[in-house]
Amino acid sequence: MASAWQETTGGVARWIERGRSCGARQRERRMKPRISVLTIGVDDLDRAVRFYRDGLGLSTEGVIGEEFEFGAVAFFDLQSGLRLALWPRDSISRDTGIHAGPPSITEFTIGQNVSSKEEVDAVMEQAKDAGAVIVKAAQGTFWGGYAGYFQDPDRHLWEIVWNPQLVPVD
Amino acid sequence: MASAWQETTGGVARWIERGRSCGARQRERRMKPRISVLTIGVDDLDRAVRFYRDGLGLSTEGVIGEEFEFGAVAFFDLQSGLRLALWPRDSISRDTGIHAGPPSITEFTIGQNVSSKEEVDAVMEQAKDAGAVIVKAAQGTFWGGYAGYFQDPDRHLWEIVWNPQLVPVD
Repeated sequence: MASAWQETTGGVARWIERGRSCGARQRERRMKPRISVLTIGVDDLDRAVRFYRDGLGLSTEGVIGEEFEFGAVAFFDLQSGLRLALWPRDSISRDTGIHAGPPSITEFTIGQNVSSKEEVDAVMEQAKDAGAVIVKAAQGTFWGGYAGYFQDPDRHLWEIVWNPQLVPVD
Repeated sequence: MASAWQETTGGVARWIERGRSCGARQRERRMKPRISVLTIGVDDLDRAVRFYRDGLGLSTEGVIGEEFEFGAVAFFDLQSGLRLALWPRDSISRDTGIHAGPPSITEFTIGQNVSSKEEVDAVMEQAKDAGAVIVKAAQGTFWGGYAGYFQDPDRHLWEIVWNPQLVPVD
């Protein structure tokens, strides 16, 4: 029966099958919209861990992987499915084979949206107390929000943002 | 009655109150473990949008904010609560007041964990077809996984990773 159906509707079946294959290929061609780990390059791993763990209060098991050459790294669990990793710039260079030139500060920024202007101020104050450089004091933005920038000990930029149209659900 | 209790147990009440304040302060002193937006600096916004939207298949509304000077940006929704933003390096420089020096490639890497070695190969192949530079072909890693690196058109590094101990739940 099935065989007869396949025979009489072979053309359609092949068309459907081809459609399925195309669909499967198209699905494969969509990279998953996901970042699992954001790895930031640091010059002094212990200093960076102190900043993020002790200064900002983020949770970590501390430095792991020291038994491997260029393996020492520290992970911080963030929201669902995302981790922040601190890894020496030299290790990134070694692992990728790319020469580590002088740091460039405008390569990326890390944005954290918070629930109020007061929370922006509180996080900026906490970062300053932790030794961050306040690059731009919290202030109104051209798009109607309120935000400030600080730099971590390796000069990576964080922007703490209150966006009234994008308040995080904690 | 309440007043009498406060009077007789003033010392304890103050201690409890102080304890509460400390607890509140400590809670405040923990930055939320969250990244809302990872903004990467680009030299050609349209080219970058084409790479991520057309090449990798990530979803975006395209370039928005063009009505503002230095406002043009493109957002891509990733997993829960995280967005990838493409923003010209010049705009980051302007917004932060930090001089945009020559790009440095070892400042950060974006890691995507996938479910199998085959998926690593498929994503690397897709990235190559989209115009990415394969910096390190997918291969076994020293920690028992399988991973490769590619660079987007602005030389930002993505690492596509199969980690048998950290397989994502899709």
